Amino acid sequence: MGKVIFNNSVSLDGFVAGPNDEVDEIFKWYWSGDVEVPFPGSEMVFKVSPASAALFDKTWPTIGASVLGRRMFDVSHAWGGKPPLGVHTFVVTHRPPQEWVKEESPFTFVTDGVVSAVQQAKQYAGAKDVVISSANIMQQALKAGLLDEIYMDLAPVLLGKGIRLFDRLTEPIELEPIHVIEGKGVTHLGFRVVR
Amino acid sequence: MGKVIFNNSVSLDGFVAGPNDEVDEIFKWYWSGDVEVPFPGSEMVFKVSPASAALFDKTWPTIGASVLGRRMFDVSHAWGGKPPLGVHTFVVTHRPPQEWVKEESPFTFVTDGVVSAVQQAKQYAGAKDVVISSANIMQQALKAGLLDEIYMDLAPVLLGKGIRLFDRLTEPIELEPIHVIEGKGVTHLGFRVVR
Repeated sequence: MGKVIFNNSVSLDGFVAGPNDEVDEIFKWYWSGDVEVPFPGSEMVFKVSPASAALFDKTWPTIGASVLGRRMFDVSHAWGGKPPLGVHTFVVTHRPPQEWVKEESPFTFVTDGVVSAVQQAKQYAGAKDVVISSANIMQQALKAGLLDEIYMDLAPVLLGKGIRLFDRLTEPIELEPIHVIEGKGVTHLGFRVVR
Repeated sequence: MGKVIFNNSVSLDGFVAGPNDEVDEIFKWYWSGDVEVPFPGSEMVFKVSPASAALFDKTWPTIGASVLGRRMFDVSHAWGGKPPLGVHTFVVTHRPPQEWVKEESPFTFVTDGVVSAVQQAKQYAGAKDVVISSANIMQQALKAGLLDEIYMDLAPVLLGKGIRLFDRLTEPIELEPIHVIEGKGVTHLGFRVVR
């Protein structure tokens, strides 16, 4: 079985998005460097530092499935049917959107909660890793003891308000540093969850 | 004039202390390495990594005064009269504790707010820097446009609850990375406030 990891960009004050889902400020680093990197599964081309590009090269091929929340799915307009990294995506929701419930859909809608979604994604990914991108889903996976590693792309900005990456946790959780990588306009931090 | 900087340890989820001012988890790194470093102005001897020790050597001599809040002053029992780094310390409070109001006191109590405390500390420090250690004071200095740099010693732990470093800010504030230094049990991050 692969690992379950969280990865997303976060402001220095701990927000993954502004109060109205704004991500411009914290995603700025994706276009702040010189190395062009096509983002798998999309038409987007990132322009990042060599250090960030090297990290992408190392990480992206290990991802076999993703789990995220309905809010991110809606805000992104289902990525036009092309989920990030081009991997099969498990969306936690109580109301599956019927237009995406079909045989060849890249989305599986999970109505019985985060634990079930992560388990289904692990099954699907096999030896590869499952990536969680939503803060809310990450928190629930962490509480359920399902999260193995946390990767934060730290953006040099204070948003002041918005959606917090870490919220509604209750007990202290110990971590072990995996790496610190300085990119352009971003610091990549990786931690292992100690259980 | 020197700069006004914030420096303190913070958990990965952004807390400078637990709900009852606990700092054991986030200060653990001060005793996690092999290099013994006496903490100026105290009897304490830290044991840190060579990288952290080198950062201390570079930073500590530049500090000429400190500003902090009454809560930190009380929780620390006035450091037995020996404030951190052995520098003169400006304490923001509405009720100066009379036992420390005396000629040779290492403390100055400022009753007319954070802006006044920072200005008095700058005056006192001259060409040296002023360090702010309290989250609440830092937020007010940041809002007032008085903060030049933010140094966070990031501890690999999720506290879940406590006193947030960044709270009650309202507008986005842009930062510029200064350095990223990997110590043992800690990641030292430095940012310049862009104004």
